[in-house]
Amino acid sequence: MAPHHDANDRTAKDMLAARERTAMDVVAVRDFLYNGRVQWEKKQAVLDILSNDPTFNKEQNLYMTRTQRYERGLRMIHRVLQFKDEHGWNAEEEAKAFFYLEEGLPIGLHQTAFEPVVNSQGSPELLAKYGKLIANRGIFGCYLQTELGHGSGVARLETTATYIPATQEFEIHSPTLTSSKWWIGALGKTATHGVVQAKLIMPDGKDMGPHLFFVQLRSLNDHKLLPGIVAGDIGPKAMGGYGSVDNGFARFDHVRIPREQMLSKFAQITPDGKYTKPPHAKISYGGMMYIRQSLVTAGGWLMGKAATISIRYATVRRQGEYGKDGMEPQAITHPSLFSRLLPIIAHAYVFIEVGRNLTVAFQAVSKRLAAGDTSQLAEMHAITSGLKALVTRTQVLDLETARRSMGGHGYSGYAGLGRLYAEYVPSVTYEGDNFVLDLQVARSALKSYKGIRSSKNPTPSLLSPSSNYLRHIFDPHATPPELTDAAWSDPETLVAILEWRAALLVQDLATNVAQPDANVHHRVSVAVAEAFMGAQVAGFIRDSKLSGESGKAVNNLYMLYLLTTIEASLADTLSFGILRPSRNGRDATRGLRLAILKLYEELLPNAIGLTDAFGFSDWELDSALGVYDGKVYEALWNKAQTEPLNAQEVTDAYTKSIRPILERGQALAAKAKM
Amino acid sequence: MAPHHDANDRTAKDMLAARERTAMDVVAVRDFLYNGRVQWEKKQAVLDILSNDPTFNKEQNLYMTRTQRYERGLRMIHRVLQFKDEHGWNAEEEAKAFFYLEEGLPIGLHQTAFEPVVNSQGSPELLAKYGKLIANRGIFGCYLQTELGHGSGVARLETTATYIPATQEFEIHSPTLTSSKWWIGALGKTATHGVVQAKLIMPDGKDMGPHLFFVQLRSLNDHKLLPGIVAGDIGPKAMGGYGSVDNGFARFDHVRIPREQMLSKFAQITPDGKYTKPPHAKISYGGMMYIRQSLVTAGGWLMGKAATISIRYATVRRQGEYGKDGMEPQAITHPSLFSRLLPIIAHAYVFIEVGRNLTVAFQAVSKRLAAGDTSQLAEMHAITSGLKALVTRTQVLDLETARRSMGGHGYSGYAGLGRLYAEYVPSVTYEGDNFVLDLQVARSALKSYKGIRSSKNPTPSLLSPSSNYLRHIFDPHATPPELTDAAWSDPETLVAILEWRAALLVQDLATNVAQPDANVHHRVSVAVAEAFMGAQVAGFIRDSKLSGESGKAVNNLYMLYLLTTIEASLADTLSFGILRPSRNGRDATRGLRLAILKLYEELLPNAIGLTDAFGFSDWELDSALGVYDGKVYEALWNKAQTEPLNAQEVTDAYTKSIRPILERGQALAAKAKM
Repeated sequence: MAPHHDANDRTAKDMLAARERTAMDVVAVRDFLYNGRVQWEKKQAVLDILSNDPTFNKEQNLYMTRTQRYERGLRMIHRVLQFKDEHGWNAEEEAKAFFYLEEGLPIGLHQTAFEPVVNSQGSPELLAKYGKLIANRGIFGCYLQTELGHGSGVARLETTATYIPATQEFEIHSPTLTSSKWWIGALGKTATHGVVQAKLIMPDGKDMGPHLFFVQLRSLNDHKLLPGIVAGDIGPKAMGGYGSVDNGFARFDHVRIPREQMLSKFAQITPDGKYTKPPHAKISYGGMMYIRQSLVTAGGWLMGKAATISIRYATVRRQGEYGKDGMEPQAITHPSLFSRLLPIIAHAYVFIEVGRNLTVAFQAVSKRLAAGDTSQLAEMHAITSGLKALVTRTQVLDLETARRSMGGHGYSGYAGLGRLYAEYVPSVTYEGDNFVLDLQVARSALKSYKGIRSSKNPTPSLLSPSSNYLRHIFDPHATPPELTDAAWSDPETLVAILEWRAALLVQDLATNVAQPDANVHHRVSVAVAEAFMGAQVAGFIRDSKLSGESGKAVNNLYMLYLLTTIEASLADTLSFGILRPSRNGRDATRGLRLAILKLYEELLPNAIGLTDAFGFSDWELDSALGVYDGKVYEALWNKAQTEPLNAQEVTDAYTKSIRPILERGQALAAKAKM
Repeated sequence: MAPHHDANDRTAKDMLAARERTAMDVVAVRDFLYNGRVQWEKKQAVLDILSNDPTFNKEQNLYMTRTQRYERGLRMIHRVLQFKDEHGWNAEEEAKAFFYLEEGLPIGLHQTAFEPVVNSQGSPELLAKYGKLIANRGIFGCYLQTELGHGSGVARLETTATYIPATQEFEIHSPTLTSSKWWIGALGKTATHGVVQAKLIMPDGKDMGPHLFFVQLRSLNDHKLLPGIVAGDIGPKAMGGYGSVDNGFARFDHVRIPREQMLSKFAQITPDGKYTKPPHAKISYGGMMYIRQSLVTAGGWLMGKAATISIRYATVRRQGEYGKDGMEPQAITHPSLFSRLLPIIAHAYVFIEVGRNLTVAFQAVSKRLAAGDTSQLAEMHAITSGLKALVTRTQVLDLETARRSMGGHGYSGYAGLGRLYAEYVPSVTYEGDNFVLDLQVARSALKSYKGIRSSKNPTPSLLSPSSNYLRHIFDPHATPPELTDAAWSDPETLVAILEWRAALLVQDLATNVAQPDANVHHRVSVAVAEAFMGAQVAGFIRDSKLSGESGKAVNNLYMLYLLTTIEASLADTLSFGILRPSRNGRDATRGLRLAILKLYEELLPNAIGLTDAFGFSDWELDSALGVYDGKVYEALWNKAQTEPLNAQEVTDAYTKSIRPILERGQALAAKAKM
């Protein structure tokens, strides 16, 4: 018979033992993830302030109505700004503070869309008048693009901005129900101003397509809507996500704004109604790329949270047949669990690092763009589109995989991952629906492929980083590498597999372009993005920034990323003959799968160390199952005591419904017995 | 330039046109799905009553607090019981009424666990005393199995029931924090009685393993907890799911119950403390199988809802380049959309029908079981385990695929699919965690395989339906069918592919059983379940119950099911050489993918008809994007006007937070300009 022991004591011991087993240097890896000790310390300084202030206490989060969440969200914004003044935070520290809150807030779009778009496309006059107000949040902005009837297709938006030469004004108008602006963050109840995407209509009726206009929405005296504007909140989001944000709608009834309020740095209208073209049709893509590239690193940290919570729980949860020590094994020792969870750590490490490099590259492109150089725009657009789709698809999958790995308790609100899922699941459709991005990535790949095929003497120098995988098929007689057992431990071979897969898929699409199957663009998009990521990851392994056990552990994660990416791509890899099937009715993928198993086994002793290195505090994770000390059962128990239904021993529903139900049943039962 | 038109008018016309294009007989297919006209009419009679009663009005659903949802849930139960009395509904009609509500309610576990388990395992004495009360809900029951520290592993539960011969009582006790019962539906605030899973401890201290005990929890006079019992609600579930159910916890402090309250039909304790064994160790599996088999058909209807909502929206949503008619194409015409949505219709049709047959088979097994015949138990257990994992995994995927297909608007609470996702996502971990079931299915498959290999003269008669796929490898020299282009239109070949894949995977697992890779049990489980499903579906095609265009449309769905199941299994199919890769660097899967595309194109004109045939009313769907008349934009607009935040033009947050934020910013901006 198994010895009696309280699993609640056991959990803390299990967590301690896991930490003691860690061979890597957690602090060194943490500093690596944070890009230096200084960044880590800066974060801790901000966190220390936030997590000790009652405004940011999370205990009532799950019990609030939407209206309460919205009002609390605005209190949070106000408090962060007060802290900014008190502690002299700069804009970066302010932005980080909001990021650490892990709560979609009405200020989000002011920061990521309204402010950058006005700054980059507003005329000097407009900036002189509003720049400081925007920077200091003296006005509160939103970005009105999406309409009830149209999302991704900006060219199809229906809102009009008609130029009236007589008064040198634009008239903003919503001609149809479906032209109502919809989904606009902070428009519902908060914003005082907004940038409106509208079709510019010339005095002669000519439609010049979508342009941007700066429009005041609410009075700065009493916050009432200005005449001609109807606006409100669009209602709750799925699964309670984004509850603190007032995504809103607006309709404009012939609202006049002065000519100066067209964002006119690139396209302009002269007082007498002449139109000046922008220098590059895609000049306004900067804003979209800015948001997309920022999602990559953010996605990495999010996966880090999913990994931390689920790996901690799997370390202290025990389940299965009693071992020699009289105890059940830790859940993390079951292959069906660690094979789901360890890849999430790998995704996090890879996306944090790739995202950081992407941000640097994006800043360089932005600088050129500001100087009118658009030569790198298409490349940056292709990369950010592909990675946006990849990172958002991965993060949503990982959040649910992690939640599910925690069995029944993963469905508790207190587990924390449900809330994150609800908050991040729209990422696959916002900022470019992933399926629309797939098409763009596939088209861009096709264009690069055709460029090579039509070139008389193709050389690698023709290739940008995003299409470098195509070099493998310059030579029509080249063949993929031989996949012996040793191949699975060589990162360069693994990248070659991913690149060959992408190249052959694009080549096949080019051949069948007249009759593509229904799914091929998605396959191509995934393959191209994964080939790019694979090349980045092989570079990380080559130029490892860590040494000793830490370097080994992190390189194992990178190898796991490559191998599991190939595992997920096996249908392609096998179909194109890159990996050949066996002829004896055996599983041709077993070599790969055993290589993955070996990595899992090497990584397991460092699983807690690798997640501790993300450096998340209990306040940040807000999860009873991811507590640092491992005492998950105590945490769940304590949380349950705060549920409002438990405030009364006998629920009000007793007299209203339960007693009548029981009395009816007792009467019927008595009758039936007679 | 495109002509102006209001998309809101367009939507109704698009929906009408789609209905006019339908070639199949929607009524005939609907009657087929409902298993006869009579069932459909019975449903309508119940729906008519429910949907016109204010208790079941759904307009405030998304705005309620959890306490309000719980209280409303009990009002709903009471009202259904009143209707039962008024309209003379039988038990089946009552159960159906609850099913149509699409709302997890505290009565759920009374119906599916408490009542069946007491009826099938309670002694005649216990039933005489409580049977009628239970049947009429004169007492309100729950089923206390899961504990804080243990879920799937019943054998590891810690709650004890110690027999005290002196008083002929059992003492129910929770020895540790982790032995607290947890997750128990209706335990939190509602139930008066419960069946408790506890380790039976003999007077000499011997642990007899888990047994069931009937325990009163709350007073029938004032609903207060009985002495020695602490209980309450475990708090909110992830994403607001199951908000109306008071999943609860309970701790027992040496609570005494009379000997008669052990559920003793199979295992018993004599007054002087002697133990009588149950006739079959797995005799109590009946209840688990009952719930699992019921999930199959229910899953089919759920997928039907996901398909109806998303296909309706995709029919009226227009997006893309203007066509010759000056309009954008309907979203449903994009391959990236129809390739995601049409398979969901196929899943729904298949699971509804397979589930119905399974229920008939289960009832036969139950009858035998009640008579002590356990010969079919292992087979039914294997089938229900595999199908439970398959149907729940599929339904969760399909709900999210459908939600995502609706782009931005799919994330609105009013779209309706987020609520269903939150409600059904726990199905992958409850009633047997799917990953635990995978292991059981793989073990059972291995056992069947070894049975064949060790048999001197294996014949198909050795095989049960769930292991029939193994017949292909009786002959060690047999090879899979040749896959010419014609293969993709032959259902028998498609089933053979699925069966060969399962058989070869099981054979490979048997060979490598000493060193399985981390993922193989999951792969085997999926393959075995899909081989079983494939054989069922081929049978449906052979014995088609519909004729003409309707028969053709439904058979196309069945073919789509087979083909897309193979598409999803390509890594296995290719790895084992069932489908051979090309040698010229081309995509070997293209034949299959084009066959799928052809089916999509044949199915598209009937997409609305096939979903209309599910017969869901707007009240049932509760989705602004799935309205029958197609006026989705009007529905979204009207719903948004009911959002509580819109009750005031200026939010209370203005004076509390927004004005202070703006004033601070304006002061700073003014200062910066000086």
